[in-house]
Amino acid sequence: MIKSVYIINNIPCTQYRFSPRHISAESAMIRLYNGWTRAAPYESLRVADIGDVNVNLFDLKDTCKKIQEAYREIVATGCIPLTLGGDHIIAYPILQAVAERHGPVGLIHVDAHADTSGMILGEKIGHGTPFRSCVDEGLLDCKRVIQIGLRGSGIYNKTYTVYTFIYCSFQGFRVVEAVECWHKSLVPLMEEVRSQMGTGPVYLSFDIDSLDPAFAPGTGTPEIAGLTPIQGLEIIRGCRGLNLVGCDLVEVSPPYDTTGNTALTVANLIFEMMCVLPKVKYY
Amino acid sequence: MIKSVYIINNIPCTQYRFSPRHISAESAMIRLYNGWTRAAPYESLRVADIGDVNVNLFDLKDTCKKIQEAYREIVATGCIPLTLGGDHIIAYPILQAVAERHGPVGLIHVDAHADTSGMILGEKIGHGTPFRSCVDEGLLDCKRVIQIGLRGSGIYNKTYTVYTFIYCSFQGFRVVEAVECWHKSLVPLMEEVRSQMGTGPVYLSFDIDSLDPAFAPGTGTPEIAGLTPIQGLEIIRGCRGLNLVGCDLVEVSPPYDTTGNTALTVANLIFEMMCVLPKVKYY
Amino acid sequence: MIKSVYIINNIPCTQYRFSPRHISAESAMIRLYNGWTRAAPYESLRVADIGDVNVNLFDLKDTCKKIQEAYREIVATGCIPLTLGGDHIIAYPILQAVAERHGPVGLIHVDAHADTSGMILGEKIGHGTPFRSCVDEGLLDCKRVIQIGLRGSGIYNKTYTVYTFIYCSFQGFRVVEAVECWHKSLVPLMEEVRSQMGTGPVYLSFDIDSLDPAFAPGTGTPEIAGLTPIQGLEIIRGCRGLNLVGCDLVEVSPPYDTTGNTALTVANLIFEMMCVLPKVKYY
Amino acid sequence: MIKSVYIINNIPCTQYRFSPRHISAESAMIRLYNGWTRAAPYESLRVADIGDVNVNLFDLKDTCKKIQEAYREIVATGCIPLTLGGDHIIAYPILQAVAERHGPVGLIHVDAHADTSGMILGEKIGHGTPFRSCVDEGLLDCKRVIQIGLRGSGIYNKTYTVYTFIYCSFQGFRVVEAVECWHKSLVPLMEEVRSQMGTGPVYLSFDIDSLDPAFAPGTGTPEIAGLTPIQGLEIIRGCRGLNLVGCDLVEVSPPYDTTGNTALTVANLIFEMMCVLPKVKYY
Amino acid sequence: MIKSVYIINNIPCTQYRFSPRHISAESAMIRLYNGWTRAAPYESLRVADIGDVNVNLFDLKDTCKKIQEAYREIVATGCIPLTLGGDHIIAYPILQAVAERHGPVGLIHVDAHADTSGMILGEKIGHGTPFRSCVDEGLLDCKRVIQIGLRGSGIYNKTYTVYTFIYCSFQGFRVVEAVECWHKSLVPLMEEVRSQMGTGPVYLSFDIDSLDPAFAPGTGTPEIAGLTPIQGLEIIRGCRGLNLVGCDLVEVSPPYDTTGNTALTVANLIFEMMCVLPKVKYY
Amino acid sequence: MIKSVYIINNIPCTQYRFSPRHISAESAMIRLYNGWTRAAPYESLRVADIGDVNVNLFDLKDTCKKIQEAYREIVATGCIPLTLGGDHIIAYPILQAVAERHGPVGLIHVDAHADTSGMILGEKIGHGTPFRSCVDEGLLDCKRVIQIGLRGSGIYNKTYTVYTFIYCSFQGFRVVEAVECWHKSLVPLMEEVRSQMGTGPVYLSFDIDSLDPAFAPGTGTPEIAGLTPIQGLEIIRGCRGLNLVGCDLVEVSPPYDTTGNTALTVANLIFEMMCVLPKVKYY
Repeated sequence: MIKSVYIINNIPCTQYRFSPRHISAESAMIRLYNGWTRAAPYESLRVADIGDVNVNLFDLKDTCKKIQEAYREIVATGCIPLTLGGDHIIAYPILQAVAERHGPVGLIHVDAHADTSGMILGEKIGHGTPFRSCVDEGLLDCKRVIQIGLRGSGIYNKTYTVYTFIYCSFQGFRVVEAVECWHKSLVPLMEEVRSQMGTGPVYLSFDIDSLDPAFAPGTGTPEIAGLTPIQGLEIIRGCRGLNLVGCDLVEVSPPYDTTGNTALTVANLIFEMMCVLPKVKYY
Repeated sequence: MIKSVYIINNIPCTQYRFSPRHISAESAMIRLYNGWTRAAPYESLRVADIGDVNVNLFDLKDTCKKIQEAYREIVATGCIPLTLGGDHIIAYPILQAVAERHGPVGLIHVDAHADTSGMILGEKIGHGTPFRSCVDEGLLDCKRVIQIGLRGSGIYNKTYTVYTFIYCSFQGFRVVEAVECWHKSLVPLMEEVRSQMGTGPVYLSFDIDSLDPAFAPGTGTPEIAGLTPIQGLEIIRGCRGLNLVGCDLVEVSPPYDTTGNTALTVANLIFEMMCVLPKVKYY
Repeated sequence: MIKSVYIINNIPCTQYRFSPRHISAESAMIRLYNGWTRAAPYESLRVADIGDVNVNLFDLKDTCKKIQEAYREIVATGCIPLTLGGDHIIAYPILQAVAERHGPVGLIHVDAHADTSGMILGEKIGHGTPFRSCVDEGLLDCKRVIQIGLRGSGIYNKTYTVYTFIYCSFQGFRVVEAVECWHKSLVPLMEEVRSQMGTGPVYLSFDIDSLDPAFAPGTGTPEIAGLTPIQGLEIIRGCRGLNLVGCDLVEVSPPYDTTGNTALTVANLIFEMMCVLPKVKYY
Repeated sequence: MIKSVYIINNIPCTQYRFSPRHISAESAMIRLYNGWTRAAPYESLRVADIGDVNVNLFDLKDTCKKIQEAYREIVATGCIPLTLGGDHIIAYPILQAVAERHGPVGLIHVDAHADTSGMILGEKIGHGTPFRSCVDEGLLDCKRVIQIGLRGSGIYNKTYTVYTFIYCSFQGFRVVEAVECWHKSLVPLMEEVRSQMGTGPVYLSFDIDSLDPAFAPGTGTPEIAGLTPIQGLEIIRGCRGLNLVGCDLVEVSPPYDTTGNTALTVANLIFEMMCVLPKVKYY
Repeated sequence: MIKSVYIINNIPCTQYRFSPRHISAESAMIRLYNGWTRAAPYESLRVADIGDVNVNLFDLKDTCKKIQEAYREIVATGCIPLTLGGDHIIAYPILQAVAERHGPVGLIHVDAHADTSGMILGEKIGHGTPFRSCVDEGLLDCKRVIQIGLRGSGIYNKTYTVYTFIYCSFQGFRVVEAVECWHKSLVPLMEEVRSQMGTGPVYLSFDIDSLDPAFAPGTGTPEIAGLTPIQGLEIIRGCRGLNLVGCDLVEVSPPYDTTGNTALTVANLIFEMMCVLPKVKYY
Repeated sequence: MIKSVYIINNIPCTQYRFSPRHISAESAMIRLYNGWTRAAPYESLRVADIGDVNVNLFDLKDTCKKIQEAYREIVATGCIPLTLGGDHIIAYPILQAVAERHGPVGLIHVDAHADTSGMILGEKIGHGTPFRSCVDEGLLDCKRVIQIGLRGSGIYNKTYTVYTFIYCSFQGFRVVEAVECWHKSLVPLMEEVRSQMGTGPVYLSFDIDSLDPAFAPGTGTPEIAGLTPIQGLEIIRGCRGLNLVGCDLVEVSPPYDTTGNTALTVANLIFEMMCVLPKVKYY
């Protein structure tokens, strides 16, 4: 039996509002079969672009509510949502809907920033807070959380820095800083990740700023010395065999994507995510 | 006695958040004296850049409150605020503070869009609504309101279009559509404006999208066939002699300003505004 | 009864192949009603984007055949095709199909170049030859042809230059060079055009390089000192009342459209064309 | 007998050092005949690109010496030099060589800035001083000098502003500020210029920043509200019949020419200069 | 005795038509000696840029004929052609001329795509087919063919994908996919290549899309996760000692080369190719 | 006791004159604490941006004099200057001032070019000569000089190439060419550097063109196949424990920094330099 997967374009804030349209334009060259890995996702899954979630450009809290409601409906159909962001806050309402169905999920979080702040510029809901909110609401199976590519960000003051690291380790997250990824294949790391994740439900959240800005300049808070697209592919392909229940790719900012390479990379990464979903055939 | 004027950098929403920094960088070539008009603003006024108003990037309603409070203090000192936006909604809280001190003001509103919607995407506070809110709160002396450069925008559906025009004329605004400005000097129009405004307090609100996008591409909702920078200068210079109590220049979006010309133009327009403030000496 | 109009995306050569996609992305802000002229095209016409014609990227002659066949079918349904190019050669096979149904048509040709060469780089089919081919095949009612905005182009050698002008006048075309349009409204010209065109069928072919490259940089053979978008609007709005049987907008080259203004302008011009089609209601 | 004209690429300072190469790349579409004016310069003149003058990138005074020596030789052959700058200081050593042969010359100076400073940043030789130096050395026939397009620039302080205008009028220059050119054809002005210049030798110095930055963004000190390319063409075509002994086009800065339109415009202007040289045939 | 080498600029299709000019502009900083490898090509070879081959922009099949004829003449003189493309189809007519003189040649093919399709969009002659045509005409010594950097491309459908790999291996080609090159020096691979190539004639065909788009964005069909310029240099330098009879560098698309880095890289790669030609002296 | 450190913006030549302003704009996201290394520079040092040195844009020799005088004063206060260039010649007058206080210094020179020419385009003072001048005046402790990342550059002719290498080794410099850094962590190299430098005073001079142009396109003489930002961080972090008496970061050219990544990278590198100054606390 063929399972459904939906690709959702989701636009929660101004800077990122043209992102899905931009990625979609650059996806023109993506093929039906994966020439690298021999996956045939369109033979195995029913795939549809179900359009944008309607958001409130002027009130992020209301936006979160609207996303949660939309995803509750989507997830209820049994499909696996692949979402194009939008800023990273969207992971929070999506995970609310996903956990409502699947219970607390494992999380593979690829990002330059931990996004576990309690507050950002005086607000609890913002692009630096989604995973704190997820923890607070019990949406994550914290022993099955890994954060890959962290560097620089989330380090506004000393107290906070220290707190971030205590916070993450106290929750039981595994943190793999970018510096641990330098000059290396991530294939061995992903073997460990597969064993950490086991057979339970897993959500993959990929912030494009995890990549080095030479490869993905089109984002709002770039950090130097990041992952390469090669490592990005190794991470996603390393998810093959996991029980993925949802994926997102966030923080693409078209006006800063002067060459279109960010969107091209993202279009490929989304396709690769589709190729590692459960039950996809390989030739 | 020398009067104070403050230039305020104000950042209410993501897309426009780097605008003041960007304009300021391009202002490097602006001189102390106005070689065109022979004005000497720095001899006549005390001028200071008093920095950015702290805004809430995630909640526009809270941002409006913060701006209103900040301007109440600024206006209380007797200074004339020149504000760099920011999206156009900032005109609303600024005018709350200005009208609190000066009573209902005349308004010279240069824009591609009327910005008098009652709602925008389901919200009362957004970049299409500021002047409706101003009317609702009695901040404007409606017989002394003129809108110059309107075209295209604010025309989401038939009912609304018709309503916009009825609304504006019902309030007593004078509307000068862009088409009435084509192929023409605006010097004669400004003579009429000066007589419409009389001696009462006047606020000048200049949305950069009033200009044609060939001259000012760096904005969020460009509309073709707009005003030229020459006409922009004619409007501002035509304000000489008016009792200006505040000015703003809004909707500059740096990522779309690929050549820097938008910021260069804006830096000049702000300087020209300073040159027509009350009591500026001319040589 | 509501008449149909089709917008067709057509991609005959590499440089222009992403043009329809690019224009379509920038059309996001086009409204349902024309706020300037009060036209309501979607109330009066059935409008559909019927997608791209499949072309042969490696053989332009074969491409022309494919376009002719596709349009024969389209025109047979009674609809009025609005076409997004593509290079200008597409006007030739479209006019073959249009004339097959309507007989020889009047032509309003807005362009920097005459496009009446007999040969271009040794070939009879190329972006400089469409209207010569049309004349040769009797597709045009030559007394009802006007070319507006010509300058610079088509002037490879003396013999040829002279020949171009003799050729055009010999055919009975009216030629309005760009220099005759400088510093002027084209409203009076369009009055003359309406009387030249009379009640017979008219085709409108708008090459974006007719506009000055400051307003429309995204094209392959830009020529300085061209028309303004204001004049472009005057031309199209001046077509109201004519018996338009088809329109195209050609030569948009996305990689050179660094700010997106070319596509924005084109999206507006196409919308304005739709607004002047026969039987469109005005409020 | 056919007269010679040389096009000289000249590179006196870093910012402008790639300018001739850049303009030359964009000149690919310039034709042999002038389709607008019917001039046939290549039938009337011997034309050669004689390459770059070797300059000293680290010492502007030495650069001036090298240019003067190079032009003395060039002018001695009887040819009329058309020069691609380079910054505006190059006009000074060129005029030294030109005046040595022809005596004091008339000057048509198209620019946003007067370039008659006595000092710039503490130096007598800089891009703001060339015409002061020319006056000081008696290279100009001051009653036959006109400056067109001045605005904004050269206005560093009050004393200086006043001085600039006194200086210019004291020398007998005619100054036509940009504001006098707004909304107008310059054909009537050029009739006056031709009568001012009479039959004596005339030098044409065209700074690309005379044009509005929407049309020519690729320059180092852009000033808003400038001339249009249409007006630029009217000025150059208006020189037909004058005894031109040299022309230059300066201050093109390729890194700021994001669309290539500046170079395209310049390539056209240079071609138009060639078309109005003495003895060029017209068809 | 000094051997000749010609650098040929060749322009077979619109998108790539400004490529040679663009590369040449960025080659300004290339030196006479190779500071890395100590090669002195200009002391060892007679080198000339012999200009562009005249192509037919509207008919690719005719273009191929013209290229073949031009190269037959060039190769007949005994020179080794280095060609700047142009799209990859040009390798086919060049190899026709090269094989006519040298017999079937070994091929080092660096590319993201196999370019061995039998058909592309319904045509046998296109940028995806050159090496299939070469095999069909016996131009290659198939046991001495290696393809380096393949990924993603050429994978339009399952049947085809499988077929590509069967096709290549059936012909005896060695295929080194990009994934085999990740995180590695290619120096060891090139040792194997030298032994595969032996002493027979070898042609080097380098498609710039073999490189990762972060390093070479200026191409028409970019594929992520490609080779680095370091690996590109290792490949070319690893060709030292081979009996090279021709080289090309193709698929540079200037409008997408926003920083000029693609052209800079290409200018270096071409120079490095010249440095490994037979009989070049090293210090 | 807390030591002072000054960040100096210095602008010696046109092409680089907007560099400090540009870097400063992109530094908006740099934090107070170093999240990677746990350094707390602002707790340990007094840091101030003391503004630009006033330079002579028209005379580089005079500029050098002005820089030397400015730095003599700065260094006399006991502070450690961190300088944002400006072209590389600024290292020479800075080192004059530094050596005057500290005696001959060790030098860690990260660059694509050796910058030890005796002459550049006929001048002794230029961006290719600073370290030759330093050697000539005895400002360097030559056994404690290392140059990292050299490639391509400084190789104008054979005689010279050979001479450069003889020159460097004769002085006792250690040269690490870029090719020796490929595919490698530089952590081991920096261990050797720390032992070479010992406890004496060390100056760090970092030319941004040492990095690969994919990561740092915004520079005047880019060379392909350079260092990565990861290696740049390894070099700077590897300086921890050295007796640093000054640092600079030079050759950032804003007009070529199309994405802002060069400035972002530089802002990070400067911050990292601050973090390894003597007496900085780590958490």
